[in-house]
Amino acid sequence: MGKLVMVAFGGNALLRAGQKGTYAEQLANVEDACRCLLPLLEQGCSLVIGHGNGPQVGNALLRHEAGSSQFGLQAMPMDFCGAETQGSIAYLIETAMEKVLKSAGMSRSVVSLVTRVEVSAKDPAFAAPSKPVGPYYKECPNDGSVYREDSAGRGWRKVVPSPKPLAVQNIELVERLAREGYIVVSVGGGGIPVVEGKDGRHGVEAVIDKDLACALAAVKMKADEFYILTDVPKVYVNFRKPDQKALDSMSLDEARQFLSEGQFAEGSMAPKVRAGISFVENGGGECIITEAGQLGNPTCGTRITK
Amino acid sequence: MGKLVMVAFGGNALLRAGQKGTYAEQLANVEDACRCLLPLLEQGCSLVIGHGNGPQVGNALLRHEAGSSQFGLQAMPMDFCGAETQGSIAYLIETAMEKVLKSAGMSRSVVSLVTRVEVSAKDPAFAAPSKPVGPYYKECPNDGSVYREDSAGRGWRKVVPSPKPLAVQNIELVERLAREGYIVVSVGGGGIPVVEGKDGRHGVEAVIDKDLACALAAVKMKADEFYILTDVPKVYVNFRKPDQKALDSMSLDEARQFLSEGQFAEGSMAPKVRAGISFVENGGGECIITEAGQLGNPTCGTRITK
Repeated sequence: MGKLVMVAFGGNALLRAGQKGTYAEQLANVEDACRCLLPLLEQGCSLVIGHGNGPQVGNALLRHEAGSSQFGLQAMPMDFCGAETQGSIAYLIETAMEKVLKSAGMSRSVVSLVTRVEVSAKDPAFAAPSKPVGPYYKECPNDGSVYREDSAGRGWRKVVPSPKPLAVQNIELVERLAREGYIVVSVGGGGIPVVEGKDGRHGVEAVIDKDLACALAAVKMKADEFYILTDVPKVYVNFRKPDQKALDSMSLDEARQFLSEGQFAEGSMAPKVRAGISFVENGGGECIITEAGQLGNPTCGTRITK
Repeated sequence: MGKLVMVAFGGNALLRAGQKGTYAEQLANVEDACRCLLPLLEQGCSLVIGHGNGPQVGNALLRHEAGSSQFGLQAMPMDFCGAETQGSIAYLIETAMEKVLKSAGMSRSVVSLVTRVEVSAKDPAFAAPSKPVGPYYKECPNDGSVYREDSAGRGWRKVVPSPKPLAVQNIELVERLAREGYIVVSVGGGGIPVVEGKDGRHGVEAVIDKDLACALAAVKMKADEFYILTDVPKVYVNFRKPDQKALDSMSLDEARQFLSEGQFAEGSMAPKVRAGISFVENGGGECIITEAGQLGNPTCGTRITK
């Protein structure tokens, strides 16, 4: 096999704004995303696919809420809902990927692993929950979770911590299978967050940034390239200003400098650039931030390099 | 490693009748089930765990229904919901199994695979949907699916086909990992049913009997033993009659004879006995039908042998 490549799909690669989110739409979206990976496969790359689950886990939380109020079913916590989305999104990716492989006359097996990712119970993020998830409530629920009132008056919404990923379950196996030729789906939604306790590892209500978790996986697998897929072809400085400039590449120092200048929006490009830095500074090869349609083009995207 | 053992958990091993189905209850239930596997692990067995998802996928369908009526979310089809339950149940099994292993001072890695199972589009089951799933409706929905009116007056309920499993995705990998020492979770809910089409394999609304799918997996892996876990210690003839008799073993001929006499209830013991027959007549070792608490006891359960 050739290079080992880790690709992180955004959760929006499946559920797109403006669509109803039907099964057929989601499958068509993920098929588009998978077709974009063909150039990498044609180059003989070993491939691991990670993916986000923001819109999906939000919907799962809403469905659990609705199932509770309408049918009296237990609403399960966030880690359980995240595990659900790992199953369903992996299934859609496998279905779409096999169709794309078949149409290209290629034969590769796909395998998807349920993936827990360890975080530290002492991570400072647990003292400052910041990531809004799930439904809006008219009144602040009194259930031990942290809620924050929406500034636009939509109500109260749960906020959960976003701790740093420390270890990806079975990553040595993911690497081995990828190097054998399997297309491996793992680290779904950034992984199901678990902390080590005296009874073993157990789930926590949190969201791990999927690009950071994929970066950690890519480092552990000694990946040659780490692609973070987004909806723009390159990273920009002075974004949406008259002097906006697309970047072909950034050194680690340049990337850190741009970040400290506030060039990249939080909740959007900034975490992707941080994930890219994390990959490269921990011994990874190149990180490429680009849109899916550019994959395989040797000058695509913005490269973060040493 | 020692013997290769396939164990099929019932869906009721997690969600028990009479409980609310809280997260803590489900985790405690699956921990009980996993603790029962310790004697097999202590004997050095390679272990693959399959599981049912009847109650869970029923709840998932209800949550999708409620999410649609309350929040306008798309209700996803059965194969998607089955994939969700593969993720969430595997996650619970992994969490519980690690706790049990840790308390026993044992060290084994657990890995869970999303598993599709191929069925034939020409399977006669598709012409005669028989398995009731999901919510009851006051009026028969007109959405292309088949609904049947409940004889107890609870309303209309979707019925789906229960086709025969033909191939288990990545089963050679499941076998290899189990023989290496991984505890592998696969074939959840009998697998996500897919049929081969010109565009590759795609999901269908159907339920594959989980014991039959696990039997097929066990045959392909050349498993030495196939345990079907249920809520009675042995299989009985003349069940609940004055001359009820527990069976220590059955030959293939005896099992077929008892089945043809109607000794085993449909929807209960009959499909388990059929799955056991299928394993043994296709070259498997022994099938043992028993309750989880009996595992490791050499005289436990009812053995189906050549």
